[in-house]
Amino acid sequence: MEREASELFEEFKELTASEFFRRNKQMLGFSGKIRSLTMVFHELITNSFDAAEEAGIQPEISIDLKRVDKDHYILKHKDNGPGIPENYITKVYCTMFAGSKFRNIQSRGQQGLGCSGCVLLSQMTTGKPARVISGYKKGDEIKGVEMTFKMDVKTNKGLILNKKKVDVDSTGVAIELQFKDVSYSLSEQGAFEYIRRSMIANPHAKVTFRDPTGQLFIFHRATEIIPPLPKEVLPHPKGVTADDLIFMAKHTDKRRFRSLLTSSLSRMSTKRVNEIEEITKIDLNKRPKDMKWEEAEQIVELFAQMDFMAPPTSGLIPIGKEQIEKGIREILNPEFVATTTRKPKTYRGGVSFIIEAGIAYGGNSGRVVGDQKRSEIMRFANRVPLSFDQGSCALTEALKSIDWKRYGIRDIENTPITVFVNIVSTNVPYLSTGKQSVAPEDEILHEVRQATMKIARSLQKYLNAKRAAKEEEMRSKIFETYVPVILKEAAILSGRDVPEYEYILAKVTRRPKILDEIDKETLQELTNDDMVGDKDDE
Amino acid sequence: MEREASELFEEFKELTASEFFRRNKQMLGFSGKIRSLTMVFHELITNSFDAAEEAGIQPEISIDLKRVDKDHYILKHKDNGPGIPENYITKVYCTMFAGSKFRNIQSRGQQGLGCSGCVLLSQMTTGKPARVISGYKKGDEIKGVEMTFKMDVKTNKGLILNKKKVDVDSTGVAIELQFKDVSYSLSEQGAFEYIRRSMIANPHAKVTFRDPTGQLFIFHRATEIIPPLPKEVLPHPKGVTADDLIFMAKHTDKRRFRSLLTSSLSRMSTKRVNEIEEITKIDLNKRPKDMKWEEAEQIVELFAQMDFMAPPTSGLIPIGKEQIEKGIREILNPEFVATTTRKPKTYRGGVSFIIEAGIAYGGNSGRVVGDQKRSEIMRFANRVPLSFDQGSCALTEALKSIDWKRYGIRDIENTPITVFVNIVSTNVPYLSTGKQSVAPEDEILHEVRQATMKIARSLQKYLNAKRAAKEEEMRSKIFETYVPVILKEAAILSGRDVPEYEYILAKVTRRPKILDEIDKETLQELTNDDMVGDKDDE
Repeated sequence: MEREASELFEEFKELTASEFFRRNKQMLGFSGKIRSLTMVFHELITNSFDAAEEAGIQPEISIDLKRVDKDHYILKHKDNGPGIPENYITKVYCTMFAGSKFRNIQSRGQQGLGCSGCVLLSQMTTGKPARVISGYKKGDEIKGVEMTFKMDVKTNKGLILNKKKVDVDSTGVAIELQFKDVSYSLSEQGAFEYIRRSMIANPHAKVTFRDPTGQLFIFHRATEIIPPLPKEVLPHPKGVTADDLIFMAKHTDKRRFRSLLTSSLSRMSTKRVNEIEEITKIDLNKRPKDMKWEEAEQIVELFAQMDFMAPPTSGLIPIGKEQIEKGIREILNPEFVATTTRKPKTYRGGVSFIIEAGIAYGGNSGRVVGDQKRSEIMRFANRVPLSFDQGSCALTEALKSIDWKRYGIRDIENTPITVFVNIVSTNVPYLSTGKQSVAPEDEILHEVRQATMKIARSLQKYLNAKRAAKEEEMRSKIFETYVPVILKEAAILSGRDVPEYEYILAKVTRRPKILDEIDKETLQELTNDDMVGDKDDE
Repeated sequence: MEREASELFEEFKELTASEFFRRNKQMLGFSGKIRSLTMVFHELITNSFDAAEEAGIQPEISIDLKRVDKDHYILKHKDNGPGIPENYITKVYCTMFAGSKFRNIQSRGQQGLGCSGCVLLSQMTTGKPARVISGYKKGDEIKGVEMTFKMDVKTNKGLILNKKKVDVDSTGVAIELQFKDVSYSLSEQGAFEYIRRSMIANPHAKVTFRDPTGQLFIFHRATEIIPPLPKEVLPHPKGVTADDLIFMAKHTDKRRFRSLLTSSLSRMSTKRVNEIEEITKIDLNKRPKDMKWEEAEQIVELFAQMDFMAPPTSGLIPIGKEQIEKGIREILNPEFVATTTRKPKTYRGGVSFIIEAGIAYGGNSGRVVGDQKRSEIMRFANRVPLSFDQGSCALTEALKSIDWKRYGIRDIENTPITVFVNIVSTNVPYLSTGKQSVAPEDEILHEVRQATMKIARSLQKYLNAKRAAKEEEMRSKIFETYVPVILKEAAILSGRDVPEYEYILAKVTRRPKILDEIDKETLQELTNDDMVGDKDDE
């Protein structure tokens, strides 16, 4: 039996963003118990870091995770950022697609989904409201407010249950959320490893974490230097599309298209605009709203052919090779570390990025699997650890393509090595929603390879030198073991005293070794034994 | 220099869903030129199929893809569905998160993003408006309307540029969209393969496709049977969360929680409700809005312990083993095909699903790589081909875990086999936004293995029989070749005539082979040659 359209459309309706994500929480990265909790940590930590840095404050976070019951946790997260003014609190935590970071600026978060996603997950799994205490400056005063609220998914807004003024000593936000159906894990994709990796890439931050067993972990600052605040940079002409130009034209307050171009794009001088006008014959004095799509397209095509200076790199703030080294030393305590920060490059013709890499060997480098040490890759984008979707990521792909044998590492899988890679960009080309893997742009693959090969060469030199030193030590030890024995036996045979030989021996073995250090027992055995090499090779 | 919160929040704003996805189009599956076009085909085709079936119409689609320029295409897509009433057209195509399919029903699309996503991509890449002609019934009349419109991303609404009444012969929607930065490809992930696979899983549909070279492909119906319309089923108690109960309670028009339970959940009798009341001591006569979270949680916990009948399966409509076979025969023209449709099972305690599988051997089965035939896996969810993210999908994982050698297939990679798997469910547990891979639920993995092993055994029997027949034929051919020669030579030696032996030989070789069929030349050679086996093994 056929049904007609009007009947079928009776049930037509529109969802709010909150309702939509309530039905599709996996789109927020909330899938699986371990991953869900790691995503919550990720959202809260990156938000706190971004907020503190934007306000010029050295980030300090304390996190307390209590286990109430199997799969049921209470999370308390507190930062020292600028705080959130009272009238924005429910907007930040209960309105999806709302945020202050929709700009062309390098930041950890960008989508206006992070905090509200955590509140949604908490509410969906426990029905409990969120509790927030915010301290924020207003003039010379620090105001404090405490609020409990729920998210009304039908309206995508907050529903305040309770609100009161409180006294606070300093600015910052403390949030308390409960979760069920999540799981705290020490695995590579778990929350603890997420914090540890965050600390390597953010050595200027301090994090105190009390885990569900009550153990307190203090991740100290490895450096006191606050990274400079990335500047908002205008989009580069090579990075814009016709749609971007039309969109800008539609929402600008400029009165001429000419001035829209010079004020909205980087590297766009009046001279350049005149050139464009001459080549395209488009009247750029027209009002922005009168710009036609075909004209915008023509301009973008011309952009592709013109030479522009690379985008300004004041918008990109790398961690820096010294800082990465400090972070790695603090967390991994390795035997050897090499780091590098490459010069800015661009992909897709106009989006600039920087690749940084580090390699750590020995100490706590690598990953323990059973009773074996394996190598591990730590991927980061704008200092944020990427914990999932490793397989499809350009950073992984580039590292896997390196012929490690050429760098003296015969079996990379089973070597205690940690390779660190960070991509810095205002527009990291993520492959998926969860922002967990980077698209394989040629220029990015190339830069990751170059960076890693450079530090791999340093590691190779270190390993070669270590090997040579070890061989030399073995040779020396043989001298140091045999010479005294021969001298002693020779002295007995010739009926003379053992001569003073320590000084000459030390000169030959090139180390001021004194006889006392040789194990007497070993010496005793040596006189009875033929094979000594094995015992000395400690 | 520290900055205070109010300053930082000056730039706080809220995006519409359209604005959000304009910035994050990869979340709609639009990443890469080939994939983007395949996703457009996917959205339009599944929408047409769903609409036609919901209206009780046998789907028929015609698609015309013209190439205007490199990476620039005009797509015309026309269906014979019920059409869209005039006042819903821009809602369907320009408002994200709007749709008529947010119900607990088995359908191909579900998220209210498909069609509007295509319009967004078209607009972002070409600036061109969409053109739609809709024919729909109103009473006994068929109304026709033609519209051109754009999407206003700032408001998440349509902007009508032109609208007029037109005469139409039948119901249905025709849409014309232009795209740039997309690419038509014949690869496994391209648009053509997407259509081909769709036809295997939808043998009741007809699709006419004109490709950019002008070639016309007509995919005929392999069956005239319209699949029954899936029924909307009430959620099963084992599938609901406390949050679902609270959400239902908040938006119901029932006056007692008791009646909410019996009317909103399947398998929930008054007897069951009384049991729940007795065990939990919760007064179920209370108003739904008075239900507390803890009470909802208590009820859900009790659901987990109670025994319920499995969910009604009237909501699940599999393709059916005969129909899959017809689809496979029509498209792959294989030498052998086996198919199976399993009984409904549940995962996560209450979500029912059905696994169907098919295996095709020979003919156009498998995938051509260079000049070699390889095996291929075709994954489907509710008849929709899953073209991407194969690696992380439970369907692939289950198939890879099968020991194909046990089924007489020594080298599965290099065998001309196509394995077809379809999961049918009101709630397919997708892993990612793009709905391209299925989560590895134990029950799903198990069912896929069982289904595939069953049809693999049929294939094994066929291959064994084929092998045995071939060997028998070889044996027979040896008889048929040698016996006449021996008889002839013996006749010459004994000076007699060659006797009549054909009838007896045919009895021995069990085939009525007559002498004429033996190649005279071969016979000639045989008399001069010792080795004959090779020549007969044709």
